[in-house]
Amino acid sequence: MNQREKFLVIGKDHPGVEVEEKVRGEFEFVGDISLPNMLHAKILRSPYAHALVKRIDTTKAEKLPGVKAVITHKDVVDRWFVRAPGTHSSNPRTLDTRIIDEKMRYVGDRVAAVAATSLEIAEEALELIEVEYEELPAVFDPVKAMQPGAPVIHDSIKLADEDIPIKNNIVGPTYMTMGDVEAGFKQADLVIENEFRSGYVHNSPMGRPACICRPLPGGGLEIWNQTQGIHVTRMCFAQTLDIPMSKIKVHRVSLGGAFGFYTYVKYSDIIGAFLALKTGLPVKIEQSREEMFFDGGRHPMVMRLKTGVKKDGTLTAMDMRLIDGVGAYVSGTSICKLSCGFFMSMYNCPNKRFDGYSAYTNTPPKGAMRGAGNPQQNFAVESQMDIIAEKLNLDPIELRLKNHLGVGHTFYGQGPDVYCTVQTCGTEQLIREGAKRIGWEHRKVITPYKDKPWVKRGIGMARGFHTSGASSAASEKPSMLILDYSSAIVKMNEDGTANLIIAAADFGTSNITAIAAIAAEELGIRYEDVIVTEADTDTTLWEYWIHASRSAYSIGTAAKRASNNAKKTILEWAAKMLSVPVDQLEARDSRIYPKATPSEGLSFREVLEYAQSQNWGTAIGTASGSAPACPPHFVVTFVEVDVDTKTGEVKVVRAVHGADVGTPILPSAVRGQLIGGLHMGIGFALTEGVVYDSVDGHVVNPNFRDYKLVTPLDMPKVETFLADTWEPTGPFGAKGVGEGALNPVAAAVYNAVYNAIGARIYTMPITPEKILNALKNKQGE
Amino acid sequence: MNQREKFLVIGKDHPGVEVEEKVRGEFEFVGDISLPNMLHAKILRSPYAHALVKRIDTTKAEKLPGVKAVITHKDVVDRWFVRAPGTHSSNPRTLDTRIIDEKMRYVGDRVAAVAATSLEIAEEALELIEVEYEELPAVFDPVKAMQPGAPVIHDSIKLADEDIPIKNNIVGPTYMTMGDVEAGFKQADLVIENEFRSGYVHNSPMGRPACICRPLPGGGLEIWNQTQGIHVTRMCFAQTLDIPMSKIKVHRVSLGGAFGFYTYVKYSDIIGAFLALKTGLPVKIEQSREEMFFDGGRHPMVMRLKTGVKKDGTLTAMDMRLIDGVGAYVSGTSICKLSCGFFMSMYNCPNKRFDGYSAYTNTPPKGAMRGAGNPQQNFAVESQMDIIAEKLNLDPIELRLKNHLGVGHTFYGQGPDVYCTVQTCGTEQLIREGAKRIGWEHRKVITPYKDKPWVKRGIGMARGFHTSGASSAASEKPSMLILDYSSAIVKMNEDGTANLIIAAADFGTSNITAIAAIAAEELGIRYEDVIVTEADTDTTLWEYWIHASRSAYSIGTAAKRASNNAKKTILEWAAKMLSVPVDQLEARDSRIYPKATPSEGLSFREVLEYAQSQNWGTAIGTASGSAPACPPHFVVTFVEVDVDTKTGEVKVVRAVHGADVGTPILPSAVRGQLIGGLHMGIGFALTEGVVYDSVDGHVVNPNFRDYKLVTPLDMPKVETFLADTWEPTGPFGAKGVGEGALNPVAAAVYNAVYNAIGARIYTMPITPEKILNALKNKQGE
Repeated sequence: MNQREKFLVIGKDHPGVEVEEKVRGEFEFVGDISLPNMLHAKILRSPYAHALVKRIDTTKAEKLPGVKAVITHKDVVDRWFVRAPGTHSSNPRTLDTRIIDEKMRYVGDRVAAVAATSLEIAEEALELIEVEYEELPAVFDPVKAMQPGAPVIHDSIKLADEDIPIKNNIVGPTYMTMGDVEAGFKQADLVIENEFRSGYVHNSPMGRPACICRPLPGGGLEIWNQTQGIHVTRMCFAQTLDIPMSKIKVHRVSLGGAFGFYTYVKYSDIIGAFLALKTGLPVKIEQSREEMFFDGGRHPMVMRLKTGVKKDGTLTAMDMRLIDGVGAYVSGTSICKLSCGFFMSMYNCPNKRFDGYSAYTNTPPKGAMRGAGNPQQNFAVESQMDIIAEKLNLDPIELRLKNHLGVGHTFYGQGPDVYCTVQTCGTEQLIREGAKRIGWEHRKVITPYKDKPWVKRGIGMARGFHTSGASSAASEKPSMLILDYSSAIVKMNEDGTANLIIAAADFGTSNITAIAAIAAEELGIRYEDVIVTEADTDTTLWEYWIHASRSAYSIGTAAKRASNNAKKTILEWAAKMLSVPVDQLEARDSRIYPKATPSEGLSFREVLEYAQSQNWGTAIGTASGSAPACPPHFVVTFVEVDVDTKTGEVKVVRAVHGADVGTPILPSAVRGQLIGGLHMGIGFALTEGVVYDSVDGHVVNPNFRDYKLVTPLDMPKVETFLADTWEPTGPFGAKGVGEGALNPVAAAVYNAVYNAIGARIYTMPITPEKILNALKNKQGE
Repeated sequence: MNQREKFLVIGKDHPGVEVEEKVRGEFEFVGDISLPNMLHAKILRSPYAHALVKRIDTTKAEKLPGVKAVITHKDVVDRWFVRAPGTHSSNPRTLDTRIIDEKMRYVGDRVAAVAATSLEIAEEALELIEVEYEELPAVFDPVKAMQPGAPVIHDSIKLADEDIPIKNNIVGPTYMTMGDVEAGFKQADLVIENEFRSGYVHNSPMGRPACICRPLPGGGLEIWNQTQGIHVTRMCFAQTLDIPMSKIKVHRVSLGGAFGFYTYVKYSDIIGAFLALKTGLPVKIEQSREEMFFDGGRHPMVMRLKTGVKKDGTLTAMDMRLIDGVGAYVSGTSICKLSCGFFMSMYNCPNKRFDGYSAYTNTPPKGAMRGAGNPQQNFAVESQMDIIAEKLNLDPIELRLKNHLGVGHTFYGQGPDVYCTVQTCGTEQLIREGAKRIGWEHRKVITPYKDKPWVKRGIGMARGFHTSGASSAASEKPSMLILDYSSAIVKMNEDGTANLIIAAADFGTSNITAIAAIAAEELGIRYEDVIVTEADTDTTLWEYWIHASRSAYSIGTAAKRASNNAKKTILEWAAKMLSVPVDQLEARDSRIYPKATPSEGLSFREVLEYAQSQNWGTAIGTASGSAPACPPHFVVTFVEVDVDTKTGEVKVVRAVHGADVGTPILPSAVRGQLIGGLHMGIGFALTEGVVYDSVDGHVVNPNFRDYKLVTPLDMPKVETFLADTWEPTGPFGAKGVGEGALNPVAAAVYNAVYNAIGARIYTMPITPEKILNALKNKQGE
């Protein structure tokens, strides 16, 4: 595209911000920080999935030398824990979690906590706490939990000052309908109904949770914590601890990975804060790898999907009933709502209905995870599309091309209230190009290994998307629960460099590098002259979580606007110096020059130094507000899988993974996201799963030996490619990429497995056992 | 004044920013900060006033366990030390100082430096460095230093890349003339000529110099140092060490007092930085109280003043020849130039001339000190005015009222290039009111103690002023050497509070409290809702040194502008919410309401929370640039002194000290400045003085036992009062106060002593010996 040819920074790769420190091992993550007189805290966890604490005695623990504080539910009676933003007066969220409760709702729930002068003493003290429990009957399956007579996990939850009663463990049902679904089914030539169950996988970033809270004079707190949103942390801590928000300062600290795990405030973080306030000393609290499995992960969903379709493949009705197993606490979030929006955005079908229920169970509370409600419904819908294609004897890719949501349609980026009209869609280009690359035309099941004729190779595909941010700017009414806007400050230095002052932290995806590149391109300076500044909640403007694949699109938009504002001042100064009207000047490659006579210009440094010597001031630009929309970025995945019909083993051997991200700001980072999404999607499909004991509910595999992440050796040969689109609402034509890259991968694998063996799996993950069973059932047919 | 009656914040007293931490002893000054693996550095000082280092052997020191680096002049050959801002390409300053030189120019000059794992090891290592010196003849008196044949202290100095030869130790002569001085003398009925010598006093803030430099990956530095200007530190370090300025981050750290001592970058600071870069480890360097006397203090001046006056008291000519003893290094500053501007601004006389010379001597380099060149000339001029009044039999206050510089006259705020037209002047009001309060009308020498009739009580007065900032905005051409502009960022929080993000640090005078009060008043919120934010050179815009009594006026102007910009956004939001045109709204007391129906408004919090829930953004305002002028604030001092004619002891027993500061932003802080100025002025007049050995040049009293600061017990009964003026160019009518408060004090004391004993002292300080000699000479007359 011509517009892209002019770019000097964008579309090229650059060393990531902080990369040098990280490569040298000098980078300080929160876990590396130590403050004088810092205490270490540790949490005592419930051994029962459902129980009441009848008696708790901390006397012995308190007497242990080095122990500075022990807290139990008695210390935090009726302290509601705000884990997600939005609970201020004009915008309340429901609450269901106390810092520490009298009632235990899952194995790993919080019984007590200790702060001591060393971690070892804290751990020893935990063992000295005497607890007497009354065990209660527990329920682990969300479908069972919704049945009458099931154990009651929460009587009620809190909304503002009201108690909202909870019935049948159902919290936050979501219902949405378009057109007339029943009429749609009547128009159909074929109605297909299937139930799909998505897996309970865990984000498992390498960087473990760590939080340091330092009490400040006057009752404030200074906080370093792993978070995808420092302003969210500030808001949540302020509301939970009843401290004025402006007395809390949260430092911007980069993350060792996140995948959504660091959106909701961690239970450990708030306990650390409470202990810091109680002791008056800085408290550090970290989670072990095992403890990480007591929180977060993808909501497992049971999805009953009914689809009506005409013989020619035209969809007439889509109806999904979804049960979302949220675990013991939900903390005001509604992944179910997001699934609803994404389901509504899958295909351009006139009649659609979504009926979703979030159900409590006595399992760890699930959280946000890359894709947030999207990969689950994608798995169901994209499996169903292949089932339909087969029944109607249509090419699965033609079925999709006929019906996919595209330009001019409404896209729901973050539940029913956050939507926009699609302006660019590369889906067709991606499908056609991917089909060519994978060899779709000639696909048939082959046996690739002469010596192992029982290994079958199949090809499958699926399509998907994700939102780019959760801006509701294009919606009729803004979503009250999503404070999704971005901000940036761009400050020029006398030497021609710029400080980019943002709250958004690097979480290892080059997200901040991309934002810096956008600022450099817009200012007209070199990438290396943009310095992403260490900052905190005091020195930055509001930034929502880094979530919803929003860094490049939403924060990039803010950085571009702020850069443009700063540039205006610099151009005015240059116009004065050069005696050339400002509209005849161009800023490019760290120089400002008359468009007509480019050799006559000045460097940024010359302009800024002169401005300083004349006391004209320091150039600064700011921006804060919504991105213009929430455009979907589209992804199409083709995979080849080998299925060993003797062992049931499945291996993805090749993947062709294409994305429509608009302008790729950093091509290698986009490719990194696509490969990473493929990696996580393959794990979702094949190997990953948090397994809990069906009797007592404890997680049996909370470690990386037993929780099977996909390793580099398991990865297929990958080809990535991009559609050629320009998102008109995005910064320099860009959209997101991070989550779309994951969403269709599992369904593509499932479809490929079906292609290889002619038997379909409806639940996650595909274990060898399930393959062998499916083959057995098929033979039995 | 009516305008002031509306104020809710200004004109009232407020707890100082950081006051709670300071009172609790929890506040961290730089000296309190410790970093992991931090080294401690110490400097070896020259025992000779003038010498060449012929041989230096650091072998033994380097071998001492714990020593990480030793540097001598060999490590920093031709490294010019930039101590003051302005040496970038478009704005060069002269340089005369290397980090460590081969030539020693005063006792205490830098021979070598050591960084070691502890301070004790560093000190031990210094003793192991072997040095062989070639002693050179030295000169300590500036008048002698200018004579042909005097020892040559500097052959040449550096300007950009050129060597500028130095003759007769004279650096930077200053000459300025108005009218025709010789003609003026011819018109005079009386011509008086006297020589005055001002003292060499030291700033002596309680907080000692401390600097921590931490090397950053990529060759950068993170710095915590005691400084009156973090951006100046950044600029100076970058230029001295040849590091890109944007790789240096200087934290805003509050000072334990300053009085100008923390303007120029300290020799120890830059040595610490060099050692940090050399070792790759953080280095802390502090100065002992003794070392502090090796740097800084007030330039002692020899002033020959010739004044022509008519019988009716009309001044016809003023001519000053001034010799400024700068010490061993001057580092581009020219206090002499400032004296010139202030001398030209004393009286409205048509014919004036100033002929000033800065002369090197083999004494410690002097620096900037409260009043910077003003109190010296004030002492001379105001002594002379009393001499004239007596000769002409005029009342000294009437002589001053007849001639003082006032409204409509040109005021030189920072040397000849920085000037403005005086718009408000409370001098007459101050003189009349002060005279009434002290009982001027009935003044005569009394003997206040019946049992000690030899104690004589006299009354004296003097008038003075100082600039409010050094903005050259009103001058014909901006001063190339003074990058005196201010900046502020005001960021609103969702809870209705504001972060004030500025580079200017609190140096204990409530200067930042005053700026916060200005921001609160302008925004329309409560004082306690303005949070002055911890920040650094990355997150703040350029701010010049806090100097020239500029905090309230110059930074206050920036804070007011930034607050106004932020308020505009908030008012627009409120207008939308209330459906009231923005120009009909008022922001006051943390509420925004229609002027017509004040009860219908919203709180700031309600507006900001709603704006956030609607994703409108975060309100921010910025401002950067010159203050509109450099208006003088005027001060008049009346003192009563007791002179013990037996012992020669002088005691100031009562002071009436009035100031024209425009609007007093914080009345108690203004009063604090007036009392503090009086304190420092009395010390200047009576007790303080750095004494060096006349043979070898070493400072004999570098400690608080021998250097006599005025103690609380020595202070007189003080009455302060303010003129009723409103500075139209100032924020809410304000001007400065800090330095004016000091400037006329010494002259008032000298005049009072004369009044008491009828003998005049022309040199500083007034020692008992001088009193007894003066009485003896008088008797002998």
